[in-house]
Amino acid sequence: MISAERETTDTTTDMRGGIDLGGTKIQAVVVDAAHEVRGEAKQPTPTAGGPADVAAAIAATLREAATAAGVETSGLQGIGVGSPGEIDVASGTVAQARNLPGWEGTFPLADELAAELGAPVRLGNDVQVATDAEVALGAGRPYGSLLGVFWGTGVGGAIVLDRKAWLGRGIAGELGHVVVVQGGRRCPCGRLGCLEAYAGRSAMESRARELVEEGRGTELFELMDKKGRTRLTSGIWQRALEHGDALAHQLVDEAVEAIGTGVASAINLLDVEAVIVGGGLGVRLGETYRDRIAAAMLPHLFDDDSPPAVHVAELGDLGGALGAALLVEGEAA
Amino acid sequence: MISAERETTDTTTDMRGGIDLGGTKIQAVVVDAAHEVRGEAKQPTPTAGGPADVAAAIAATLREAATAAGVETSGLQGIGVGSPGEIDVASGTVAQARNLPGWEGTFPLADELAAELGAPVRLGNDVQVATDAEVALGAGRPYGSLLGVFWGTGVGGAIVLDRKAWLGRGIAGELGHVVVVQGGRRCPCGRLGCLEAYAGRSAMESRARELVEEGRGTELFELMDKKGRTRLTSGIWQRALEHGDALAHQLVDEAVEAIGTGVASAINLLDVEAVIVGGGLGVRLGETYRDRIAAAMLPHLFDDDSPPAVHVAELGDLGGALGAALLVEGEAA
Repeated sequence: MISAERETTDTTTDMRGGIDLGGTKIQAVVVDAAHEVRGEAKQPTPTAGGPADVAAAIAATLREAATAAGVETSGLQGIGVGSPGEIDVASGTVAQARNLPGWEGTFPLADELAAELGAPVRLGNDVQVATDAEVALGAGRPYGSLLGVFWGTGVGGAIVLDRKAWLGRGIAGELGHVVVVQGGRRCPCGRLGCLEAYAGRSAMESRARELVEEGRGTELFELMDKKGRTRLTSGIWQRALEHGDALAHQLVDEAVEAIGTGVASAINLLDVEAVIVGGGLGVRLGETYRDRIAAAMLPHLFDDDSPPAVHVAELGDLGGALGAALLVEGEAA
Repeated sequence: MISAERETTDTTTDMRGGIDLGGTKIQAVVVDAAHEVRGEAKQPTPTAGGPADVAAAIAATLREAATAAGVETSGLQGIGVGSPGEIDVASGTVAQARNLPGWEGTFPLADELAAELGAPVRLGNDVQVATDAEVALGAGRPYGSLLGVFWGTGVGGAIVLDRKAWLGRGIAGELGHVVVVQGGRRCPCGRLGCLEAYAGRSAMESRARELVEEGRGTELFELMDKKGRTRLTSGIWQRALEHGDALAHQLVDEAVEAIGTGVASAINLLDVEAVIVGGGLGVRLGETYRDRIAAAMLPHLFDDDSPPAVHVAELGDLGGALGAALLVEGEAA
């Protein structure tokens, strides 16, 4: 009986697909029943066209991961997609994904991918699935309650209480729009003084451009040109920090200060056990900045005798895709 | 059978005591099984002495309420106490109640009162029980999730999710120490830029004194002297506002702005259905300031298309004591 069970576990019927749909790249994985990655693939997110082009790129990326895993996509038990924008899980649609090209309207992403790939597709919020992955498989495993902090293009947040996502009326966890300076800097969202206005990579880049126009020097934009990029990626920020670029250090210091303040406010409200820092910048800057974020929180923590544990997301860049694959399990359960 | 049941409901065995222990006053109620107030009493909180003196004053206040209700305290089913400070429910102790005289240590308040009054005593956190009362009997009844905002000497908060208090590791809901201005005004807690530094009545009084020293005029302190008070009570602030006192208006405007910012940050995180504003200033300033707090939240709400409902605490000044009486029910259930 045991060997029969093992055999079942090893067949492709227990394989699942997971896709992390980001503004910069599409990450796909194919995992087995033990959450082991059997195949993975990565492609840049289309910067032109519309939702149908993005869906085609997603399908191509997942096919590549499936080939690497030695399975057909139609043999997958299901496919989960972690997406930005407004997700309607029941209808399988994504609306207003502003970081994706031409995606102001509503697009039936789940049906489109299911038809293309021949397997059921389930959608989830990108930040939420990455947090779920850390809870189930990563740094969040020991904790009953935690706050996920995703430091990337923007600053995303996700709240887990009693090991379940707290979604409120649907959009809970908007950590990036917790105010850190009343009447402060303009956020990409249009509001004043949000955490994301100081710590989102997009806002940090705008601020760097302003400072350069004011005559400040930095190698950030040279590095960008050299790498053939049009945006300051997490890797470029990391390189500039390593080179001792003063402007990069100043802006990252300001970001860390704002994250410390906003996360401490969230902890004063929620009093959760742990904080998991992920996202492009969070994962890339890793341990050093984990300690600095913990230190920046401390002066604002009401109960500074028992600060929450602060960890870097353990699953790194694959967390989003692994969490998306968990959506399939969720449906099966 | 029906009349027998009614008779049972009317006996004193179904009566419960509730005490709201505040820094300024002790409010006691005796309620019946239908939560109707059968007797109430109010006494000033001792400003000198120690915990034993406060306990004696609590006992005297409850006896007065029991007399008004026509019962003996020993006939009560139980007595609940909503207290500031650190509450240990299991051991019935209160520690570090800094707004109460000589209460830096730990005091066995439940045992002391039970011995004195001849009925079982159960303790709870003051802000939490006042919120529970609004959830069970007041403005919170229609909602599954809400944020209680207690605007008084300090700014207290309480979080209710799926109709249950969320306590985190024990101190969740510290809304008063959500940061509204990073590096901003010094809070009575010692930290910088907390909501309470702008909106707590104690901080507002300190700020008023500073401005008077800088030469600003106000009738706040004249009103205080006339009323024989040593502190600017909620009633004094209300009177000064009615008289058009410019300094009072400026400081209350600043407080409303800070509450709007801090509560909006909390809503962006929690996305709860409603906000209930209570506390001395919250209840006293009522409807006008409810609307102004709702308006001050709006520019910071991420989902400004569906702001939460904002209500004034419906049970007013008695909410804390009514919520404390619910603690007895909780134990019986």
